[in-house]
Amino acid sequence: MLVVKVGGSKGIDLRNVAKDVVNYENIILLHGGSHELNKLQEKLDHPPKTLTSVSGYTSRYTDEKTMEMFQMIYSGKVNKQFVCMLQENGVNALGLSGVDGRLVTAKRKEALKVIENDKKKIIRDDLSGIIKDVNTDLINTLLSDGFVPVITPPVIGEEFNSLNVDGDRMAAEIAKSLGAETLLILSNVPGLLRDIDDENSLIENISKDEIEDYMQYAEGRMKKKLLGAKEALEEDVNRVIFASANKENPITSALQGNGTVIE
Amino acid sequence: MLVVKVGGSKGIDLRNVAKDVVNYENIILLHGGSHELNKLQEKLDHPPKTLTSVSGYTSRYTDEKTMEMFQMIYSGKVNKQFVCMLQENGVNALGLSGVDGRLVTAKRKEALKVIENDKKKIIRDDLSGIIKDVNTDLINTLLSDGFVPVITPPVIGEEFNSLNVDGDRMAAEIAKSLGAETLLILSNVPGLLRDIDDENSLIENISKDEIEDYMQYAEGRMKKKLLGAKEALEEDVNRVIFASANKENPITSALQGNGTVIE
Repeated sequence: MLVVKVGGSKGIDLRNVAKDVVNYENIILLHGGSHELNKLQEKLDHPPKTLTSVSGYTSRYTDEKTMEMFQMIYSGKVNKQFVCMLQENGVNALGLSGVDGRLVTAKRKEALKVIENDKKKIIRDDLSGIIKDVNTDLINTLLSDGFVPVITPPVIGEEFNSLNVDGDRMAAEIAKSLGAETLLILSNVPGLLRDIDDENSLIENISKDEIEDYMQYAEGRMKKKLLGAKEALEEDVNRVIFASANKENPITSALQGNGTVIE
Repeated sequence: MLVVKVGGSKGIDLRNVAKDVVNYENIILLHGGSHELNKLQEKLDHPPKTLTSVSGYTSRYTDEKTMEMFQMIYSGKVNKQFVCMLQENGVNALGLSGVDGRLVTAKRKEALKVIENDKKKIIRDDLSGIIKDVNTDLINTLLSDGFVPVITPPVIGEEFNSLNVDGDRMAAEIAKSLGAETLLILSNVPGLLRDIDDENSLIENISKDEIEDYMQYAEGRMKKKLLGAKEALEEDVNRVIFASANKENPITSALQGNGTVIE
């Protein structure tokens, strides 16, 4: 089983991925939508705001108004565009957010400790959560009925609201729960770079015990990607690959080893 | 089997419906989103425009930009809000648009003959369609796995784009395909009225052979509701009810005969 997550940053074209999926069976897709959501938040006069946790991870400040727009972009626009593209390429895709059929459940982070202007602050109205459970039965039923699940955040909380979770960690949790052999994280960079400004500084291989040593190279969102990889590899997942979405047949290319392979 | 469609006009609160669903088994839900979409189109400077066909039916002009917003509101915001409300009320809801798993397929109307300023005109860039097929296997699998499907337009065309279809007629097609016993259409009016300005002029019963005689009372969107009812009753559906969504337990109330019952 193969879990592929495609990021939603600026410049990522889902069409490359959509064309490659038909070559694989037992594949589960996830996608992001951050760039599209940023644009909508700007247009609707509710600009995006980034929170930095005390441990250095960044996330989108997701109040109720942002969550409405989050659902519009992730579950609405991007998910359905991706599903249509896949259908066009002969893949019987079926889109689901984490709230549908309680596919992915989470516990809300009720008090978020963040750093703002060098000061510690507690945020209480952020709708984000920590994943608790994945409904693998639903995914397996869809797979055995011939569908390719196209999954997106948000997920559902214990009080039945939509919660934001990091898409890479969601992909890692799903891969773990399904015991997927490979987790593939496609983004707009070729993998983990020693120098973020130099695409030729790609780190090609990391053994799973060395992940901590490479944390120093992870900036911004890459930190969560590495953390997700670590968590996945601690369980049944054999291999995590970070690779570029911006080429022809990006899945096939990544599986051939073009990217950062952690195993 | 019971198919319930809740409209998306101004003033309709999905919460009343969400609380009543737990009382029913073998139930399929559909919803609209027109009022929310109107608001978003205004905010994003692409105001809604109504087309009137030469035969007098009205529909939303759905160019590509409108379709993006359509997906955002129907498949994103409204669908997921409804799913969360249902989950909160103990119903294991799972949201799907017509494009997911090719749940509902349609043929695009390539040239729409409309009346604009008393003149006939052909519209070629409207993304709307006529429903061809419903994937009843997918609905039946979800039902037998204990999920309540929450279905929304758009649907998928032969060229794999998202197409707008009227939600009431989509509900009628789904009820027909499943051979549902009852199709219930909930909106912000108590049923078909002899006088649209007088809520006391409710037509309580119509026999299926008399539908044509009542077309004269149907204004605006009610015309399509009646047309959908006629089509559904011509096949396996026994009963179509038009009733108000704006009361406690609107499904139970309608099934007790409060509304316009056509059979």
